[in-house]
Amino acid sequence: MNTSSRKVVSVGLLGCGTVGASFFRLMEESRAQILETTGAELSITKVAVKDKNKQRSVYIPPELICDDPMDVVGDDSIDIVVECIGGINPALELISASLEGKKSVVTANKELLARHWNQLHDKAAANKVQLFCEAAVGGAIPVVRALEVSLAGEKIRRVTGILNGTTNYILTKMSEESLAYEDALREAQDLGFAEADPTADVGGHDAASKLAILASTAFHSEVKADDVFCEGIEKVTAADMDFAKRSGYSIKLLAVAETLGPNDSDDLPTAAAGQKIAVRVYPAMVSLTHPLASVRLSFNACFLEGAASGELMLYGRGAGGLPTASAILGDVMTAVSCASPAISSALLKRAEIYPVGKLENKYYISLYVSDQSGVLAEVAEVFAKNKVSIRSMEQIGMFDEARLVFITHLANEDNMQRTLSELGSLTCVEKVGSFLRVYGDE
Amino acid sequence: MNTSSRKVVSVGLLGCGTVGASFFRLMEESRAQILETTGAELSITKVAVKDKNKQRSVYIPPELICDDPMDVVGDDSIDIVVECIGGINPALELISASLEGKKSVVTANKELLARHWNQLHDKAAANKVQLFCEAAVGGAIPVVRALEVSLAGEKIRRVTGILNGTTNYILTKMSEESLAYEDALREAQDLGFAEADPTADVGGHDAASKLAILASTAFHSEVKADDVFCEGIEKVTAADMDFAKRSGYSIKLLAVAETLGPNDSDDLPTAAAGQKIAVRVYPAMVSLTHPLASVRLSFNACFLEGAASGELMLYGRGAGGLPTASAILGDVMTAVSCASPAISSALLKRAEIYPVGKLENKYYISLYVSDQSGVLAEVAEVFAKNKVSIRSMEQIGMFDEARLVFITHLANEDNMQRTLSELGSLTCVEKVGSFLRVYGDE
Repeated sequence: MNTSSRKVVSVGLLGCGTVGASFFRLMEESRAQILETTGAELSITKVAVKDKNKQRSVYIPPELICDDPMDVVGDDSIDIVVECIGGINPALELISASLEGKKSVVTANKELLARHWNQLHDKAAANKVQLFCEAAVGGAIPVVRALEVSLAGEKIRRVTGILNGTTNYILTKMSEESLAYEDALREAQDLGFAEADPTADVGGHDAASKLAILASTAFHSEVKADDVFCEGIEKVTAADMDFAKRSGYSIKLLAVAETLGPNDSDDLPTAAAGQKIAVRVYPAMVSLTHPLASVRLSFNACFLEGAASGELMLYGRGAGGLPTASAILGDVMTAVSCASPAISSALLKRAEIYPVGKLENKYYISLYVSDQSGVLAEVAEVFAKNKVSIRSMEQIGMFDEARLVFITHLANEDNMQRTLSELGSLTCVEKVGSFLRVYGDE
Repeated sequence: MNTSSRKVVSVGLLGCGTVGASFFRLMEESRAQILETTGAELSITKVAVKDKNKQRSVYIPPELICDDPMDVVGDDSIDIVVECIGGINPALELISASLEGKKSVVTANKELLARHWNQLHDKAAANKVQLFCEAAVGGAIPVVRALEVSLAGEKIRRVTGILNGTTNYILTKMSEESLAYEDALREAQDLGFAEADPTADVGGHDAASKLAILASTAFHSEVKADDVFCEGIEKVTAADMDFAKRSGYSIKLLAVAETLGPNDSDDLPTAAAGQKIAVRVYPAMVSLTHPLASVRLSFNACFLEGAASGELMLYGRGAGGLPTASAILGDVMTAVSCASPAISSALLKRAEIYPVGKLENKYYISLYVSDQSGVLAEVAEVFAKNKVSIRSMEQIGMFDEARLVFITHLANEDNMQRTLSELGSLTCVEKVGSFLRVYGDE
């Protein structure tokens, strides 16, 4: 290594919580390896924190610490800004100012990118710097880079992910230890996997933000978090789990994005005229023969279907300080090594969103009914009238506890929703119970 | 898109077999997407083939075809050479000449890179061009790029792969349909998954080449195919499969590379002084709780363990024309977009190889014995004398058909080999049957 050719690169860090502190430590420990692989000497020269006096899990020399993030953003000697604050404001202003100041930015901020993708990428392109976000989706799982670079020439048709570790942990515990939803949630909260207010996780909103980022990257069209149809796992019951286990399924919170042509034709080029994108997050019955079914606990996975590549799956720890820091460090090293962005993502057109109601799925429906003759005929007629064809039916329990569980063939979502609503108003139906899409057993 | 800023890039193709033809078609079909994402107009301007008159699965304009590969390599108007010939010669000479002529090279040639990694990468660096080989390992699975870029800052400790689709297909058929090895092999040959001479696949040599490439990339040290300890799947029997299924294992041909310090200390930085690398390919009993156990048929997967990233797995179709072409196209687009190589891999030092005999494993051993009292005592004494501790024993069959099946605790490989050899010379042991490492049930 020729010392005289060494590049010296200054990194400024915004935020020093779990992820920021892990990144600080990882970068300090990796100096030799960074120098060896990039030929550059990287060092963190400024760290902006909220409270300078707070006790931290990592030692940061006091002279690096400041409490005004603009000290980092406005520092001309800093080449790369790493944003670990999270949330929309002031992260949006800080990242924008960094890019305008010709600094490349690495961020793990999924909420922000799922709402301001084009705005931020346009700013990066206009200032000829880079914006990286591998850490925003799936911790250290290299899925964003894979879509941007390795699969750049690929026509991705569908992305199906388990993108939220908290909900996957809860669903795994419900399945493997027969816990009720509330008990599994409480256990996840006790272990620090779930927040005191778990809405962002269990309601599917965290997964929706990540899905928006993956869809934007995979389909070269800007998809926003608000485009994503979103159902959470709050209504999944022990009875559903029981049925799933007996019937060869695993219940997972799936995040699904796919391209559809105006006529649902499959062979449209990505981002072609008339292409629409369907994006949704919901709990689903996943066939045990599908690789996603075996993703347990807080692990994440992303299943990609490409026209030429075929099926790919990337799997790993979806969150946590160190895995996220590892992804950030990879981005920082790429920013150092690669003069121009690998793939220009500055020019994404706004995606046209395919209405969820026009999609086709198979469905699982659980109905609480009065246990008397003629119920099935009445119920079946409602399905038939709405063109939803039944693949299997099973009665579980008797008398007051009688439930009918149906699996349908492929049916249109609007038709299915109309069926549910009409079933709910039948006098023989006491309650429409769970309703889940069925995935992966074609 | 500003037309005046369009880059025009010429690609020369060496070889037009399954992969070359798939790449030609994929690039023709992807022009619009390539232009959109890279801002460059890519076209294949020359294709070197063995026989100009051969019928091909894809139409290639006759004016592009030549039968002297030097016409491609020596053409100053060509920017990027894609090598799809395979084998060592003349691929080595052609790639070397291309790099010397300042052309970046994309190749799927695992044999070549597993033998001449440094030689070729040094040449690329000296000429300030790039050498990409994502397609050499695992088809479209983006594992090489992930190790080079996303995980560039990661201390990878172990890479465990199912890297050969043919053997995984055979093992899956043996397991799921209770076929004998010979019958499963014949079926794979009939379906075109296995060659008439299947040695490279079933003997583990193909996986060994791919493992050498992954180990070089992951550990920043040159590992060659000849460094890899290699056992094939030829001796795996239906009886082993039977035991595996009953006991919670799946038999897989594993390719394992890991770093070990002089004292087997776990926390050595990658490529640190004294670091050694252990590399081996062999059939193993993989616990069903491990994600690799569920990789079926001709799919490949790569399980990575990093200090910060934790466990990651990448999964997909490991071979075939289109998946391989997809990886090549990703490399070509990266070569176009990224001015400098993301990570300089030109300076790899030669790896120090850790002797397989010093490794520790758990083992599965099947012994054909005479069914008489005292046999177990005699056998157990040989294990004990060699410091191999038995975790479980089971007698299968009786009289002339009696077999003893052992699973050991962690034991030293040299000790285990000595045990096997001594067991073989006991008069009560008629034959030492199968011998497999046990993986993933710690």
